Amino acid sequence: MAIVTEGMRSNARASVETEPVYDAATFHGATFFDALPRFRSGEDDPRKYLERCLEVIAAREPVVKAWVVLNERGAREAADASAARWRSGKPLSPIDGMPIGIKDLIETKDMPTQMGCAAMEGNFPKRDSALVRALRDAGAVIVGKAVTTELGGAHPGPTTNPFDPQRTPGGSSSGSAAAVACGMVPVAIGTQVGGSVIRPASYCGNWAIKPTYGALNRGERQGYSQSAIGVHANSPIDMWQVAMEIAQRAGGDPGHPGLFGPNETPPALKPQQLVMMETPGWEGLDAATRKAFERVLQVVREQDVAIVRRSTSPLVEAFEHGIAQVKAINSEICAFELRWSLENLVEHYPGKLSKHAMKKLEQGRKMSLEDFRKRLLERDDARRRLAAIAPFGDALISLSSPGPAPLNDVNGPRPTGDAIFNYPSSSLGAPAVTVPLISVAGMPVGVQIMGQPHHDARVTGIARWLAATVAPVKVD
Amino acid sequence: MAIVTEGMRSNARASVETEPVYDAATFHGATFFDALPRFRSGEDDPRKYLERCLEVIAAREPVVKAWVVLNERGAREAADASAARWRSGKPLSPIDGMPIGIKDLIETKDMPTQMGCAAMEGNFPKRDSALVRALRDAGAVIVGKAVTTELGGAHPGPTTNPFDPQRTPGGSSSGSAAAVACGMVPVAIGTQVGGSVIRPASYCGNWAIKPTYGALNRGERQGYSQSAIGVHANSPIDMWQVAMEIAQRAGGDPGHPGLFGPNETPPALKPQQLVMMETPGWEGLDAATRKAFERVLQVVREQDVAIVRRSTSPLVEAFEHGIAQVKAINSEICAFELRWSLENLVEHYPGKLSKHAMKKLEQGRKMSLEDFRKRLLERDDARRRLAAIAPFGDALISLSSPGPAPLNDVNGPRPTGDAIFNYPSSSLGAPAVTVPLISVAGMPVGVQIMGQPHHDARVTGIARWLAATVAPVKVD
Repeated sequence: MAIVTEGMRSNARASVETEPVYDAATFHGATFFDALPRFRSGEDDPRKYLERCLEVIAAREPVVKAWVVLNERGAREAADASAARWRSGKPLSPIDGMPIGIKDLIETKDMPTQMGCAAMEGNFPKRDSALVRALRDAGAVIVGKAVTTELGGAHPGPTTNPFDPQRTPGGSSSGSAAAVACGMVPVAIGTQVGGSVIRPASYCGNWAIKPTYGALNRGERQGYSQSAIGVHANSPIDMWQVAMEIAQRAGGDPGHPGLFGPNETPPALKPQQLVMMETPGWEGLDAATRKAFERVLQVVREQDVAIVRRSTSPLVEAFEHGIAQVKAINSEICAFELRWSLENLVEHYPGKLSKHAMKKLEQGRKMSLEDFRKRLLERDDARRRLAAIAPFGDALISLSSPGPAPLNDVNGPRPTGDAIFNYPSSSLGAPAVTVPLISVAGMPVGVQIMGQPHHDARVTGIARWLAATVAPVKVD
Repeated sequence: MAIVTEGMRSNARASVETEPVYDAATFHGATFFDALPRFRSGEDDPRKYLERCLEVIAAREPVVKAWVVLNERGAREAADASAARWRSGKPLSPIDGMPIGIKDLIETKDMPTQMGCAAMEGNFPKRDSALVRALRDAGAVIVGKAVTTELGGAHPGPTTNPFDPQRTPGGSSSGSAAAVACGMVPVAIGTQVGGSVIRPASYCGNWAIKPTYGALNRGERQGYSQSAIGVHANSPIDMWQVAMEIAQRAGGDPGHPGLFGPNETPPALKPQQLVMMETPGWEGLDAATRKAFERVLQVVREQDVAIVRRSTSPLVEAFEHGIAQVKAINSEICAFELRWSLENLVEHYPGKLSKHAMKKLEQGRKMSLEDFRKRLLERDDARRRLAAIAPFGDALISLSSPGPAPLNDVNGPRPTGDAIFNYPSSSLGAPAVTVPLISVAGMPVGVQIMGQPHHDARVTGIARWLAATVAPVKVD
């Protein structure tokens, strides 16, 4: 029964009930793409796959707390329908039968959308966001709503890091990252405005893509000019396939051309030259993570890939100078754009918003239209500077977070960790992929590949090359 | 008591209970800006102004049917609060106390938002769209929700044209245009995706602005890449002031810099040169309307303003060639972008959508992402061609609709009239202002001034110059 054993590997390993210490070299999370041959042969089917996921959820959820609500019955029905399609040799797509978690900021017709916010308790619009409908149309099995921080902001939900319950899973896509990390689902959908996909993915050892701004249809909820739908997974194949199945059906945001790239996951692509980003926050990086990242760069160099950095290129220095204020730009643009929905919540549900959200509202109220326009101009300028360095590198490389997940500190200034390495791709509307390549004292840290807008496929290919070329780095 | 009589003129004339024949030379709709001196002197106040509006509504509503719901109690409370502010010499803005109607596509916390759609019956999200909140913050009195066609599409609501109940008021901002035309309110908010502000304003003899794409914050409902909030009024001053009070508070859509221009309405601005747009639909124009428009152009020429048209300028010809397919571009972009919200409605409320809406959904379902991308490219190309003719004219001039409002034909292919002259500004994201300058057989037709994106103030200034310079034209 070797093949069945092999089959079980795709989501059995994570079903350990205790928190495993993370080692990037040995960790294998639940994947879906490798189950397809056994779906075709009849040795496995999507219902069985789902049941294994539900077992992991039952075992790990009491500590990890990744979910707001599960629709087990709906998921089983969808999985049975998918199993029938595989039996008849007519799956709807390569993700037919894939169990997927949806961040609770995104609307689903069969479950409430409460956004981690007391004021949104019981909110149940009974409609699917465009991407959710696209996923269902592709045969995916929507398992549940994954915990988000309050309205995707700083106030954390209950989720813990699957590799250490004393640590944050990151935010705001906390439940999505954690659920994927411990094999509850092979894929979960997150969203990023500042650092809400790549950071939790880094802390939880996921692969994840935060695509080009506008590349995946956000549906009705479009309050921000830089939020993006992202995909958390345990392999670049599941990650890409889900993004592409969404784009092929629902396209991008209104007026955007949608995700560009091949239907099949782009193969590993060796770059000739990479730009290393020493963006704000670089100075405060801990020594262990810095050492690990330098080792990654060393291996890349040994493959005859040139690394361009600010010390050797005035243009790269100009680019980095242009994003020096990226944290403030992010913060003010978001505060101004978020103000109007927060005003409604505060008025109707007094006392139901956290201190973090009230602070954001106050920040928005203090801003004038001219303040906002100034920040938009700065963001545009940074985007032009990114375009200007396009000829210098096939992509940009940095860390996905400044070190591993910090200890929980619900009342601290950064309760879900620091998004400082994620603001650049968010502000620039640029695609970013995180590769789980480093472990620091038993906790994951991702390496981030960022590219020019619409180069999502190239970024994914280079990320795959990196994963195939650089042996995972372990430091203490 | 000459001053009081003068004061009453601002919204008394429209309170005739029979439908007046329209003559652009003698029509004076209800205006608000000219009531402010009497608010200051205490001879009039916003509560009295509102009561006069409510009288007109009581008299005309049985035939005109402009409203889905009124909040008279809330309006009276707001008007009383405004009156107190004027008494104490502390109005919040120049529109403090202005009664305003809100198109029923836009959310209001105190009234349902049913979008002229059976599937949305009872929808009551109890929140204000950003622009509604901004209006309240400026002291405006929100009177009610004005009739929209179904979801802003082709299926008409019950509203009739105030100048002839056998004719359409135009769509989709049917109630907004009609309410302003007969003095129920001095200002109403509309929205335009294809031709839904400028066309009904033309048919109803309003002034109206459809600003640059993104210039006024649409709030939560942003399913389209070319919808815009517009303002219907009986004077360019009320029109501009309302737009600017929204922009100063809520800004534009996320990521957009918002409406540019002075806080006070731009004064009349004489252009040196205007581009006349002979866009699709020009050939089918009726002889009477064509004759009236040629007379307008003749007066403009007599003022030493050069008129550039395709027959004399290859670049203008290239621009018009670039928008020759604008109807199909509009239609397909909207079908693709609207699909996902229609899918939800069809699934949850089977049979509740009109044939028009189902046809739109079918159109969207047939389109691939590549089809959509092709149309986006064509739209981008048209925008570049518009930019290319910027040096040729201070603005563009055309008609706001191909003739006056047609007779009602609920089941006809164009039940609310033809938007063919409005697709260009919608597709191009360009600002447009309609000037009520023509009457054809007792019905209004507007002259349209369109400009480069963000030139809203210049377009408004040129529209004021046109109104001040060209005597209204009356043809049979």
